[in-house]
Amino acid sequence: MVDEPAFIQSLRALATHPAARGLADDAAVLEIGGETLVLTKDMMVEGVHWPREQSLADVAWKLVAVNLSDLAAKGAEPVGVMLGYALGANDAAFLEGLREALDTFGVPLLGGDTVATPGQRTFSLTAIGRATHAPVPSRGGAPAGDGLYLCGLVGGAMMGFEALTGLGEADEAPFTRPTPLLAQGRALAPHVSAMMDVSDGLLIDAWRMAQASKVTIRIDSTAVPLAAPEARRGDALRWGDDYALLFTASSDASLPVEAARIGTVDAQGEAALQIDGEWLSGPEGLGYQH
Amino acid sequence: MVDEPAFIQSLRALATHPAARGLADDAAVLEIGGETLVLTKDMMVEGVHWPREQSLADVAWKLVAVNLSDLAAKGAEPVGVMLGYALGANDAAFLEGLREALDTFGVPLLGGDTVATPGQRTFSLTAIGRATHAPVPSRGGAPAGDGLYLCGLVGGAMMGFEALTGLGEADEAPFTRPTPLLAQGRALAPHVSAMMDVSDGLLIDAWRMAQASKVTIRIDSTAVPLAAPEARRGDALRWGDDYALLFTASSDASLPVEAARIGTVDAQGEAALQIDGEWLSGPEGLGYQH
Repeated sequence: MVDEPAFIQSLRALATHPAARGLADDAAVLEIGGETLVLTKDMMVEGVHWPREQSLADVAWKLVAVNLSDLAAKGAEPVGVMLGYALGANDAAFLEGLREALDTFGVPLLGGDTVATPGQRTFSLTAIGRATHAPVPSRGGAPAGDGLYLCGLVGGAMMGFEALTGLGEADEAPFTRPTPLLAQGRALAPHVSAMMDVSDGLLIDAWRMAQASKVTIRIDSTAVPLAAPEARRGDALRWGDDYALLFTASSDASLPVEAARIGTVDAQGEAALQIDGEWLSGPEGLGYQH
Repeated sequence: MVDEPAFIQSLRALATHPAARGLADDAAVLEIGGETLVLTKDMMVEGVHWPREQSLADVAWKLVAVNLSDLAAKGAEPVGVMLGYALGANDAAFLEGLREALDTFGVPLLGGDTVATPGQRTFSLTAIGRATHAPVPSRGGAPAGDGLYLCGLVGGAMMGFEALTGLGEADEAPFTRPTPLLAQGRALAPHVSAMMDVSDGLLIDAWRMAQASKVTIRIDSTAVPLAAPEARRGDALRWGDDYALLFTASSDASLPVEAARIGTVDAQGEAALQIDGEWLSGPEGLGYQH
């Protein structure tokens, strides 16, 4: 999975509206009628974002969960979702998973579109949320001197994926049924200087936060809380899909939820990221890029 | 192209939120912070919603236009769009068409998602609008006694499609570069009892309006203004993609924009639709169903 940076950069160049953080920052933030709306849109493609072994009920759940995770990272509460659905086999399973996710997270389905596709199916979801704190956290606000924290674990989705695809034995749920940390995101929003969800891997996402904040982030890899065996620590830091919240906050902040301190924000140095004292100059090999 | 009614019905059953008109009525209507938001989502699939001959610049334009047409039918002004884009060939052409459409209609790109797809590409767009009139028009409000009107022409997209695919000679633009009637929709909103855009064909959409309003709609087919030769009138009434506005209003209403009276709303009779005195009991053969 390789980015097409020219296209993305061109899209960003098109997105000149002040609300248009959605291409660089997972969610758009829009002031309207005295409220601050947060809008996210994530797509999932058959054979790319889910393996053949995964049931469509789980795919539906995940489609909802990954979008709500983007809202969680903004401290936003969900208002509703719009579904884009490609009809095909196992529609009933998709519906069941969709119903479970919407019920579990208390989010209404507002509308959407269905289409017939001849090939791989693509599902998309737009989630609309209401910000609960201003300013709305972004990945670009981390100042030198702050601590780097992780709320949640990493590695569980990797273990779950391996179990699902017959490569290991573990609970599949962290991969198939991730939980967006909505309550934690809302609780944290007033306390953080920067926040994002870890969707593509802890290291690549930390690298993005450092780039957006124009700082260097130093990570102590042994401090990262794992949902995987210690022997898999290196892999767990590079695997995505865990939807933990990565954030920065003042070192003396009294945090309202449990979070592990995993690093420090420094003034911009030789590179964006330093892991256990080693510089990492680019995003190559750090995680899932798209 | 056949519906999967069971799935759609199940989705609608899931959409129990008062704002969830989006599955039955093209757009969701959401009260938030003293504003009324209108949300629409349309997808376009390669090989289904556009022919091989169509440039991706035109596809991008159309993706924006069809969503804005849903806002037009609600009398809403666009606030922004979120794009779901499958990367592939001719991304630059897509970008150019997207830029032209956003510039022409004065709508900002707020964010979105890009994915890689191995097969047919699916694009999706969510448009966010702000209602300018309350109540927001829907397709369900037509009362017996009102007149049925059309703002815009039908048949032009059919002629354009035929020209594009080498079957005829005509201006391709009505098919490739449709114009959402945003100003007309806003002007009409305070005057209409029901309104929708004609996306799938005049007859099928009139049938849907009659069903939603629990009335019978009688159409005088000779009164329908055409952008096609008279000999093609029957086809033009069944072809979609014209994005005219179909609405009902009191017979003595002073309409702020040009519109043709093409029929009458009656109390629910033998069937939902009567064309030139003939009953049409079901939607079969009336237009594009999806």
